[in-house]
Amino acid sequence: MASKGGFGVTRRRWVATASAAAAGVAMGRSDAALLAGQEESPRLADPTKTPGRLVSEIGSRAPGEQPRRLLRAQALSSSSRTPLHELYGVITPSDLHFERHHAGVPQIEASAHELLVHGMVERPQVFDMAALKRFPRTSRICFIECSGNGGGAYDRDRMPERITPQQLDGLVSTSEWTGVMLSTVLREAGVRPGASWILAEGSDAAVMSRSVPLDKAMDDAMLAYGQNGEAVRPEQGYPVRLLLPGWEGNAQVKWLRRIEVADRPGMTRDETSRYTDPLKDGTARQFSFVMDAKSIVTFPAYPYALTEPGWWEIEGLAWSGRGRIARVEVSVDGGRSWADAKLEGPVLSKSTVRFRRLWRWDGRETLIVSRATDETGYVQPAIHDLWRARGERTAYHQNHQRAWKVSRDGAVTFGLGELL
Amino acid sequence: MASKGGFGVTRRRWVATASAAAAGVAMGRSDAALLAGQEESPRLADPTKTPGRLVSEIGSRAPGEQPRRLLRAQALSSSSRTPLHELYGVITPSDLHFERHHAGVPQIEASAHELLVHGMVERPQVFDMAALKRFPRTSRICFIECSGNGGGAYDRDRMPERITPQQLDGLVSTSEWTGVMLSTVLREAGVRPGASWILAEGSDAAVMSRSVPLDKAMDDAMLAYGQNGEAVRPEQGYPVRLLLPGWEGNAQVKWLRRIEVADRPGMTRDETSRYTDPLKDGTARQFSFVMDAKSIVTFPAYPYALTEPGWWEIEGLAWSGRGRIARVEVSVDGGRSWADAKLEGPVLSKSTVRFRRLWRWDGRETLIVSRATDETGYVQPAIHDLWRARGERTAYHQNHQRAWKVSRDGAVTFGLGELL
Repeated sequence: MASKGGFGVTRRRWVATASAAAAGVAMGRSDAALLAGQEESPRLADPTKTPGRLVSEIGSRAPGEQPRRLLRAQALSSSSRTPLHELYGVITPSDLHFERHHAGVPQIEASAHELLVHGMVERPQVFDMAALKRFPRTSRICFIECSGNGGGAYDRDRMPERITPQQLDGLVSTSEWTGVMLSTVLREAGVRPGASWILAEGSDAAVMSRSVPLDKAMDDAMLAYGQNGEAVRPEQGYPVRLLLPGWEGNAQVKWLRRIEVADRPGMTRDETSRYTDPLKDGTARQFSFVMDAKSIVTFPAYPYALTEPGWWEIEGLAWSGRGRIARVEVSVDGGRSWADAKLEGPVLSKSTVRFRRLWRWDGRETLIVSRATDETGYVQPAIHDLWRARGERTAYHQNHQRAWKVSRDGAVTFGLGELL
Repeated sequence: MASKGGFGVTRRRWVATASAAAAGVAMGRSDAALLAGQEESPRLADPTKTPGRLVSEIGSRAPGEQPRRLLRAQALSSSSRTPLHELYGVITPSDLHFERHHAGVPQIEASAHELLVHGMVERPQVFDMAALKRFPRTSRICFIECSGNGGGAYDRDRMPERITPQQLDGLVSTSEWTGVMLSTVLREAGVRPGASWILAEGSDAAVMSRSVPLDKAMDDAMLAYGQNGEAVRPEQGYPVRLLLPGWEGNAQVKWLRRIEVADRPGMTRDETSRYTDPLKDGTARQFSFVMDAKSIVTFPAYPYALTEPGWWEIEGLAWSGRGRIARVEVSVDGGRSWADAKLEGPVLSKSTVRFRRLWRWDGRETLIVSRATDETGYVQPAIHDLWRARGERTAYHQNHQRAWKVSRDGAVTFGLGELL
């Protein structure tokens, strides 16, 4: 179709809506900057007639391209969100990886940092960074997602409309992580019989501490000191963090200083009073580590607008903490019918994957919904299914299907409210 | 073995040698900085007792982690090299991607940039960036390598010893690129019968122009506007570059402004007086686009030193412009015997792949050599084979096997001279 009829896109463009720019609050800063820049920037001289700038030790972005994380609040316990709707592919630039800190970002000198491994082990040991880096290394591309991601679209009475993918789901990012397998370090220490959990402790001012089953620690857990080719960034746990592919971000303790092997969980504050999921019968799920399959359309999405009917490519990201994404379906009629989106390979286990569906907009009001299925057969649920299973007062793991409404004027708003 | 006997690395470390630091000239700036930092930096306060800094819109590197590109010369036609021996995994941070410019980095306003597609096409057209971005997108991870990379280790009479992987082979980098397939755009324009080449022209002050066979243009060529999740960096061709996976960097024209479809190559300056390969019989190879299989050990390598005998992990990068790397072998006896290195998956076509071989150093002088084999069966040649095939006066495509010598004191130097 595309190769025959052509897309007819020459000299056409899409832009963020002027009304959205005026609204201001609802937009990421970079959107506003981009719009402003398009109107205000003077024409530059013909670049073929002007010698360019010289080589440099460190590159910088083009002046007109300044994506930004969106800050929640300037407080010690805060977060910042990745601009999902402004990014390409799956790799998140390290300086745009989402943040979630409970007591700010500690300043740590790598050469003085030590990791204590003790408890139910034969050989308790302290490793400095040079020792950790001397072990055999491994790298993998995977996502990290905060378990609170997307919670802003769970409350029936406050369903948002003017919300960007960044605001809604920007607490997920994807990196190529490098480090030593935790299993290698634990074998070096010698885990004693009867051990079944580890406690991981960070060296931030919150002394973030989480318990992790030994099975996970010996499976694919990593002590990561590399991120996208370079040292882990301070906000992501420099000089070393725990990486638990596919599990909730909070358990992947940053600025890691201690691992204690034990025969029970530590029952720390952040796995008792927090990071548990209240259910409708008054009980709560605890140790709900895995991030279930999820997808989100990043275009078209607020604050973008379609400028005309015709061919548009719907695209987005899907991921699952249980393995590979097997399928992403996209509906353009509010979920009555579905078509498979194309998955951009390589489809990696516990990584985001980019999905795309070419779509011809007929100019009528449209409700776009996506749903992901992972290799275990798990299907991203509709919000009613999640409410039914967990009640409406839980605060984490809200991976229900999202929707975007395209109005007849091309404006796009969050459309989940239309499905309630 | 590792899991039984243990590595015995606790509290041990490797460091760049003091003598290398003193030599200064032979080292990347970041090495010297790192060494200096290790001695001079004051101890920081206990991070668990001090609130950390708040969230931020853009992250920054840790103070002690400041890798740098190595600049060749502050001239309009120059290059800068990626610090291969300081990086992890395969993704190159965008601000450390190597540079090679012939007239500096042009400053281009994306909203004013246009790409003309004309020549032997049914519908000559001008595309602005919004039009290019509206076409169906694709992303892929692949390397770009300058065809002159590694030339510093080809001259029999000037074989270097104190040279880092960055200095020798830093004109290769790997990114996740996003854009529209060139075939899609060419189909939109309608290639006329009889066409067999395209001419790609950049909008830098050199007006870099290269001819590319139409077969490649219709195969996996891409018009790339995304790099590692964000807009292509100015040094890499902002706002759009030609991407020819696996082919020499020079042909992947940056700041792309024109594509002319033709029935013959343009025979431009940069494919006649340059970027051809003189052979020993007085003729020259022209249009030698493909970057053949190659590997380089990044550790141990100069300026690192092994601090003691025992277990060390040899690691490096391998890549091939013809497809996937099938095998990397590592020799620790100057090429008399070889053992397969482990390849870190996913092994992607026309991408760098990280290889590793665990090795127990016995404290004796050792010559480490690596050689890559790609899925076509092509084996990275020894330097004598390359000399025999092409003579000793060619200046491009020098993908011969590299070697590193480990002396009895643990110092590591470039060791190819030992094999001549």
